[in-house]
Amino acid sequence: MTPQPAQLEALVAIADQGSFEAAAKALHVTASAVSQRIRALETMAGQVLVSRTTPCRPTAAGAAYVRLGRQTRLLYDEARLAVDDADHPDVVVGLAVAVNADSLATWFRDVLSVVAGWDNVALRLRVEDQAWSADLLRSGEVLAAVTSDPTPVQGCAVEPLGVLRYGAAASPELVERWRRGRGIDWERMPVVVFNEKDELQHQLLARRGVTPRVEHRVPTSTDFHEAVRRGLGWCTLPEPQLLPDLEAGRLVRLPGREQDHRIDVPLYWQRWRLDSPVLARLTESVHAAARAHLRRPVAS
Amino acid sequence: MTPQPAQLEALVAIADQGSFEAAAKALHVTASAVSQRIRALETMAGQVLVSRTTPCRPTAAGAAYVRLGRQTRLLYDEARLAVDDADHPDVVVGLAVAVNADSLATWFRDVLSVVAGWDNVALRLRVEDQAWSADLLRSGEVLAAVTSDPTPVQGCAVEPLGVLRYGAAASPELVERWRRGRGIDWERMPVVVFNEKDELQHQLLARRGVTPRVEHRVPTSTDFHEAVRRGLGWCTLPEPQLLPDLEAGRLVRLPGREQDHRIDVPLYWQRWRLDSPVLARLTESVHAAARAHLRRPVAS
Repeated sequence: MTPQPAQLEALVAIADQGSFEAAAKALHVTASAVSQRIRALETMAGQVLVSRTTPCRPTAAGAAYVRLGRQTRLLYDEARLAVDDADHPDVVVGLAVAVNADSLATWFRDVLSVVAGWDNVALRLRVEDQAWSADLLRSGEVLAAVTSDPTPVQGCAVEPLGVLRYGAAASPELVERWRRGRGIDWERMPVVVFNEKDELQHQLLARRGVTPRVEHRVPTSTDFHEAVRRGLGWCTLPEPQLLPDLEAGRLVRLPGREQDHRIDVPLYWQRWRLDSPVLARLTESVHAAARAHLRRPVAS
Repeated sequence: MTPQPAQLEALVAIADQGSFEAAAKALHVTASAVSQRIRALETMAGQVLVSRTTPCRPTAAGAAYVRLGRQTRLLYDEARLAVDDADHPDVVVGLAVAVNADSLATWFRDVLSVVAGWDNVALRLRVEDQAWSADLLRSGEVLAAVTSDPTPVQGCAVEPLGVLRYGAAASPELVERWRRGRGIDWERMPVVVFNEKDELQHQLLARRGVTPRVEHRVPTSTDFHEAVRRGLGWCTLPEPQLLPDLEAGRLVRLPGREQDHRIDVPLYWQRWRLDSPVLARLTESVHAAARAHLRRPVAS
């Protein structure tokens, strides 16, 4: 037996909304209709697909059906669009995509400009770090992700996008304040990190065997950049944010060899293996933006 | 009996790190030392304070001690600073603060400039919506928050900061595309929202009884602003982002009366009631930045 679209739709709605009642409301059906569809799906699968907790969550087996439901919904929507656009002016294909914060704040913005020209597509961005992106791909909550993780998620294709290079910098005043001869007081100069998981600055400090005294945390890419401009501390910035500020004199590189203060982060596009024209167009625009702004990956 | 500082410190470390082992590592003690301190604390309290799950979490009773631990740590650090700065050059007072995204992307940046001039203070920002800020204040994970929620969290003082005014806007091209006579096609013009919880745009649409066809989601303040500049959809923007773009012609207001497209969001500073000089200085700089950038609250 094959799951019915309406059954999968009910399961996805429960996963999104957290309860049978909220799912019913979102689907404009009764709660008992939702219950019936889930029971039918569970009978077919021969196992429980939804934990009746607060909030309700799909079980491990349920998660596979949630993902199937999300994938088939995309294909159904696209098919309806293709069959008769004029008769279905209200078909909107939702594209849920995870992007790491620094990409969204820099090169990925070109993708927004491209999508702005598309009808019938709603872009739903999630800003997540790579560990969480893999979960979102696995559960089908996003159909693609920009991530620094090259490990393919089951059912996904992985394509290299290029390298985002980070360099260490600070405001000119901050560097003057902590300059000691030809070097700098790495221990006492404050550092700004993105959040407690951000390792980039610590990678550079570890090369010097230093633990900084004052560590500020600013957890959004553009505000992080602005905090460094305002002299809160030094940090590593992606080149699209760093280079214009170096040029304008708002930021300066830290004393020492540039190659000691550089971190290259290779980025990848992980996406569902689905024959979806909309996903293919999105993939094309992501590659175009990456080609325009990222460095070529070094041959391995 | 009174909890010992080292016991509270162990409990806070477990809440932060998620396990006895990681807490021991962070505190540079053995895991058995951490276990002993927690057992002593639990004996004193007469109840379990940590659920030994993965990750470990404080129980409801444990949460009260975690908060006590965080508050006393601030006071101890400040006392050490006050007693002998020269002898304790390495005392750093951590200030964990929650800020809503639009504030951090606009007026709160002046606070960063002020903190950049302070020694011995590490600012740890969390960007959270108001529902979550209350939880963070309650658990003591932050000691203050900029929030639109005036309901005081137990043990916190609430001070009005002023009003952040939002106005509806879009790129000139987008408005031209969806202009219909003297009005606009509200149903078909795409909208950009912050995330699924963002109600600001929908408040305006509800006034018109309209459901938009295409809803894009861009969940970080500055990228949201940039998406609208690039024509992805219309939105409501806070005035500090909106007004310079109107001036420069990058964005235009939507057709209709300005007062129909306006939402005023009163903001508040919620902070622990603690006699902490550092928190008092931070509070002062937050009020100064708010006075410089926010509108006066309307007398109620």
